[in-house]
Amino acid sequence: MSERRHNYETAPWELRWRGLALDQLHRTESTFALSNGHIGLRGSLDEGEPSGLPGSYLNGFHEKHALPYAEGGYGYPEAGETVVNVTDGKIIRVLVQDEPLDMRYGSADTHERVLDFRSGTLRRTTEWTSPTGRRIRLHTERLVSFTQRAVAAIRYEVEPLDDDVQLVVQSDLLANEPIVSETGDPRVAAALESPLVAEFSVAEDLRAVLVHHTRASGLKMAAAMDHEIEAPDGMRTQIAAEDDLARLTVAVDVPLGQRLRLTKYLGYGWSAQRSAPAVRAQVDAALAGAMQTGWDGLLNEQRTFLDRFWASADVEIEGDPELQQAVRFALFHILQAAARGESRAIPGKGLTGPGYDGHAFWDSEMFVLPALTYTMPEAARDALQWRHSTVDKARDRARQLGLRGAAFPWRSISGAECSAYWPAGTAAFHVNAAVADAVVRYVNATGDTDFERDVGTELLLETARLWESLGHHDAHGGFRIDGVTGPDEYSAISDNNVYTNLMARRNLRSAASACERYPEIAAGFDVSSEEIRRWREAADAIYIPYDDLLGVHPQSESFTSHADWDFANTPADHYPLMLNYPYFDLYRKQVIKQADLVLAMHICGDAFDVEQKRRNFAYYEARTVRDSSLSAGTQAVLAAEVGHPDLAYDYLAEAAFTDLHDLHDNVRNGLHMASLAGAWLATVAGFGGMRDHGGELTFAPRLPGELTGIIFRMSVRGSRFSVQIGHSEAVYRLLSGPPLKLSHYGTPLILDGDEVVAAIPEQKPLPRPAQPSGLEPTRRHAGQIPHD
Amino acid sequence: MSERRHNYETAPWELRWRGLALDQLHRTESTFALSNGHIGLRGSLDEGEPSGLPGSYLNGFHEKHALPYAEGGYGYPEAGETVVNVTDGKIIRVLVQDEPLDMRYGSADTHERVLDFRSGTLRRTTEWTSPTGRRIRLHTERLVSFTQRAVAAIRYEVEPLDDDVQLVVQSDLLANEPIVSETGDPRVAAALESPLVAEFSVAEDLRAVLVHHTRASGLKMAAAMDHEIEAPDGMRTQIAAEDDLARLTVAVDVPLGQRLRLTKYLGYGWSAQRSAPAVRAQVDAALAGAMQTGWDGLLNEQRTFLDRFWASADVEIEGDPELQQAVRFALFHILQAAARGESRAIPGKGLTGPGYDGHAFWDSEMFVLPALTYTMPEAARDALQWRHSTVDKARDRARQLGLRGAAFPWRSISGAECSAYWPAGTAAFHVNAAVADAVVRYVNATGDTDFERDVGTELLLETARLWESLGHHDAHGGFRIDGVTGPDEYSAISDNNVYTNLMARRNLRSAASACERYPEIAAGFDVSSEEIRRWREAADAIYIPYDDLLGVHPQSESFTSHADWDFANTPADHYPLMLNYPYFDLYRKQVIKQADLVLAMHICGDAFDVEQKRRNFAYYEARTVRDSSLSAGTQAVLAAEVGHPDLAYDYLAEAAFTDLHDLHDNVRNGLHMASLAGAWLATVAGFGGMRDHGGELTFAPRLPGELTGIIFRMSVRGSRFSVQIGHSEAVYRLLSGPPLKLSHYGTPLILDGDEVVAAIPEQKPLPRPAQPSGLEPTRRHAGQIPHD
Repeated sequence: MSERRHNYETAPWELRWRGLALDQLHRTESTFALSNGHIGLRGSLDEGEPSGLPGSYLNGFHEKHALPYAEGGYGYPEAGETVVNVTDGKIIRVLVQDEPLDMRYGSADTHERVLDFRSGTLRRTTEWTSPTGRRIRLHTERLVSFTQRAVAAIRYEVEPLDDDVQLVVQSDLLANEPIVSETGDPRVAAALESPLVAEFSVAEDLRAVLVHHTRASGLKMAAAMDHEIEAPDGMRTQIAAEDDLARLTVAVDVPLGQRLRLTKYLGYGWSAQRSAPAVRAQVDAALAGAMQTGWDGLLNEQRTFLDRFWASADVEIEGDPELQQAVRFALFHILQAAARGESRAIPGKGLTGPGYDGHAFWDSEMFVLPALTYTMPEAARDALQWRHSTVDKARDRARQLGLRGAAFPWRSISGAECSAYWPAGTAAFHVNAAVADAVVRYVNATGDTDFERDVGTELLLETARLWESLGHHDAHGGFRIDGVTGPDEYSAISDNNVYTNLMARRNLRSAASACERYPEIAAGFDVSSEEIRRWREAADAIYIPYDDLLGVHPQSESFTSHADWDFANTPADHYPLMLNYPYFDLYRKQVIKQADLVLAMHICGDAFDVEQKRRNFAYYEARTVRDSSLSAGTQAVLAAEVGHPDLAYDYLAEAAFTDLHDLHDNVRNGLHMASLAGAWLATVAGFGGMRDHGGELTFAPRLPGELTGIIFRMSVRGSRFSVQIGHSEAVYRLLSGPPLKLSHYGTPLILDGDEVVAAIPEQKPLPRPAQPSGLEPTRRHAGQIPHD
Repeated sequence: MSERRHNYETAPWELRWRGLALDQLHRTESTFALSNGHIGLRGSLDEGEPSGLPGSYLNGFHEKHALPYAEGGYGYPEAGETVVNVTDGKIIRVLVQDEPLDMRYGSADTHERVLDFRSGTLRRTTEWTSPTGRRIRLHTERLVSFTQRAVAAIRYEVEPLDDDVQLVVQSDLLANEPIVSETGDPRVAAALESPLVAEFSVAEDLRAVLVHHTRASGLKMAAAMDHEIEAPDGMRTQIAAEDDLARLTVAVDVPLGQRLRLTKYLGYGWSAQRSAPAVRAQVDAALAGAMQTGWDGLLNEQRTFLDRFWASADVEIEGDPELQQAVRFALFHILQAAARGESRAIPGKGLTGPGYDGHAFWDSEMFVLPALTYTMPEAARDALQWRHSTVDKARDRARQLGLRGAAFPWRSISGAECSAYWPAGTAAFHVNAAVADAVVRYVNATGDTDFERDVGTELLLETARLWESLGHHDAHGGFRIDGVTGPDEYSAISDNNVYTNLMARRNLRSAASACERYPEIAAGFDVSSEEIRRWREAADAIYIPYDDLLGVHPQSESFTSHADWDFANTPADHYPLMLNYPYFDLYRKQVIKQADLVLAMHICGDAFDVEQKRRNFAYYEARTVRDSSLSAGTQAVLAAEVGHPDLAYDYLAEAAFTDLHDLHDNVRNGLHMASLAGAWLATVAGFGGMRDHGGELTFAPRLPGELTGIIFRMSVRGSRFSVQIGHSEAVYRLLSGPPLKLSHYGTPLILDGDEVVAAIPEQKPLPRPAQPSGLEPTRRHAGQIPHD
């Protein structure tokens, strides 16, 4: 590609972009986004324009719109949901002696932005010469507080560089900011054009509040700002509020050598239930707290929070600085997506952009939560509590579909199914097993029995009921699950998807055990011992197809009898395939968008023997096109397991660079949280060989040739430990908490005070498996700065 | 049901409704519709109001609109097509001494309408007393000419019954008549609201013309009227034309004992290419011809045309007068749908209503054309020529889908795919085999080698190419066709649908033979002998799944392993199932909307042995819910074949009464052409046992116990003959044309001058197979007038 997409400087603890590159703003707004899981602010320039795609989000705050169907059907969701760009509080404009500071005019002599993974702030420094020759320096720093959930803050400093200058600074709250919608549906576009209806506005002193509600979903939100100003004498301020705009104006003459410093505190809140005065009160209170803490206090809290996070979660990659940066970038954004979501979902894009309409998917439980479970388990718990808060909607949906238990949505903000294409949505019932699996993983990793009793058991038993009603015992005694869609989106509506059936089996058994552990909870949901017996019977009988002729597991029944995809005649510009070939053709052929059977071999690896894994991996490598960003991380895990550490390294890099290199050409719409989590999985489950089959962690570390070492940290049941992987040995260290039992290549280890050094067995190099022609992952060479 | 839906009087050659029953107008407008396959006029009251659903149609004249997708996909059709209610020329209003004649006011002392199958006219007689007590008699007769394709005509007579009266008659051409759209899509509704844009209007003497075009599809249409008036002295006339209305007004005092008689001639035409003056000239010329022929002339031509049709096509049902009427009603409407369609399709509803948007489906080739092929072969040829005229669009569609050859649309007016739900549209590739089969059937039945060479061979070879590219040879040497949808719409996207594979096999072989018979045509399409060899190889290897355990053919691979539908817990008001259960659930279970494997046993009966047919029939009977009107006719054919003539009789009645009894509660949108044709098939292929496997007709007649005889007429290769079925013997009679070789229960017969009497072998009564609980077909007792 001729366009250079990544101009980030390599550094271990930050993401820095030097230079202006206004044509890349749509990308850097996503990568530089700040969020705490409740508030999300895209990394737009302070002055609002130029912009790629403005965006401020409140997790869960959405508008509804009708879903159109040329040919409808029973059970098709009627309403879509889409994330709303809320009142923008980031905007601070400055007039420099009557010239608006605008990066499109004048010249930016220096311009640099830094996302700092340890301070949790986005800093910007620019020296700008106005069209008429006035030079100023602008320095800004922005944070979305991890410790004060409803608060964001901006420190804004301007100083003249070559003469006294008059500055007029305007600090805004702007609702219904014009955005360009990418939807092809005029009704969705209409719903998103000016989605906010003004309810209330007030401005006084340096403080203002705007309250709005959405037209169709009827959600209320408030945004408030307050300011501290340090300026030379003679400053005049003025504040005003209209329906959709509140503005503080500060005018002051700044002599050379002095500066204007504005600190802007933002409070955000929303509610589906509470009144406008109540929502206003909430943001007023948040602001009061923030002002009380002050800018430096917020910065300190932010750093302390992050220090604690990195101490539990850091991954060190030795020998590949750019990859080191990318993996920390990934962890930082996963943290940002989840830290303070609390009773809300983790959307596929976090709060970094409007992609996927702001919906959450199964990716959350299957990719993001594993990383969180072992690094920040309370965030994993919160995300599962969000699922639990939607269980009534899921029960209703199951009923509508003629099923028992709960059917969680394929895509949603509120918990209601929003997928308008059922073969790739409703039929993908594996989302329910992902929820169950995340419950079991979280409980195993934390021993959180309160959660297990109050939340987990209900999720397990309702999903188990779903599986029992979804499958049936056939004439041959097998328990079949027909006509469903597995993880691979280039197949749909097939029988006995191996991943789905294995996950359903585990779901059924986990539910049976949980109900036996919590008989009073089970009784509350009318689970009888007969029902538990049926779950076990279904699990024991579940049908796992196998192709004896080829010696591989078909992804779903008959898959290996289907036609091969004609890769030789598929031009390179025809990927992603779904934009150039009909679903009809994709579904009926052996072409795979993303790991499916290979994911089964990761998550349910105990269901396959070593030779099956090798053969299956090679078979599916040759048929997987990775048109989904979910795939590379899983392929890395299995590549590492079956003996291809260098291929795993390439896939780790692909997962880790998905957004920094914009590999899917859509980072403008937000970051790929599951792919970022995939980088963690590729490291820990791939090179660490970490597995959690039944609660006890096992490791089988192996370093790829290009790296000199990997150290990752994680926690389980209150024990924090690190694993350091070298070429010939691994070192396990308990960092805090009680002693822990692990295993290394099948040998038990007890971690207590001392470090444990364990040899890594030799591995015979295996021939690298083939990918479809032209789709081989880029060979990663340590230390390289890749160019597209 | 409490509402009485059918109030037709039983008579052998007409459909008569006595009484007013304005709440039934939406139904009788469909059953009383007149059409010649080019023009269609719903059976509305002359005065336009009250009405159920006004409708005047020109075959092929349609509007386009965008198809909305909440989640789009590659290859999804962008444009929908929908039949347009064209300029209404049927309307004639009368003011009786200042009181508008309106059936909602005053009183209709007598009111009767008669659709006459031999005169080809709709007659109405009413004696009406106005709210102020004036009594008049109205007698009207309406025809759409079979002999003058662009012409309709109305004879309109009013006479005072108890005093001299002043009459004002208004005869209209009315464009953009307000109709109530049933679509849920606002864009379709918008496209159909005032779809006609005025281009030109003129009125002079007793004649007027309106020319319009459609907004998006840009088609031009003209409607013209001229009149003859017979009236007492002192008549005044006036004519005027606006954009959307032309009106002739006749005012006259009519003394008691005299009458006003107006004859209205209508000319209709449309074109996608020609200019407004050219389209106007066309309708002017049509009118001139009609005036030259005159009303009596048109009536005479109509009767002569119909006499010839009945002589070739009549079916006599002895012992069940209502069924006799229904079968003639069916034949009459099939004739009306197809007679003068010429280069246009036969829509699923004919030209009787706007149902299915006016689209044509595979039903045309698979159900309607068999009936036409043996009764009015030139209409079958014309319909196939319509398919042929769309072959470029079908080639483009195949290319778009990544396939070779031609992929005909699932639903269309113009030939472009309009199905917005691909699993039940695009994936139903069997439509292509239906086209090929209709070609072979027509050529076998007529020996029309010109057609075979110029039209048929191209259709066969392009569909064969489609099948070859759609299937593949698997590792076991079978030729598989995966991921397609068969006839049954409660299954989709399955592998190796038996019907599809058998039809594809025949298509491939027929194409190979045709290309060998017409090597110069084959060469023109670059068909090599190697390609022909591959077709034969694919046909020979095609995979036909069989369930050895159950001893039945699965409808598609794995079908018989799927869960059974829970009929016991399906409430009666939950049919049709697709309105109460998701496709997801229907597709994955053994529940069948319409004959699929059973249709295969009819059309490709030579691929099954007698015992397989019996077992398969019983198996699928128990799982077929007949939510489609396409099903009963086919079930009748197989019921008769495998030894259940009384069940076949019930199914014949169900097919024949679909519209007269409004069994699917949607006759307001038009008649079900395929179901009407199914009545013919049930009689001829069912009770006659007529099969055409490879060009030679075979018969195996058998009469159900309730009937005393059936006589049907048909033609093959220029020989017209009849088959009379009694309980113990059948009589074959050559009516015209050369001698003919047939077979009777496997015994060859030569039909020449004399009738041939052949004994019908005894048949042991078999136990009646079970249908799903509550879905047993209504037991038919001859002569009964069924009530819902």
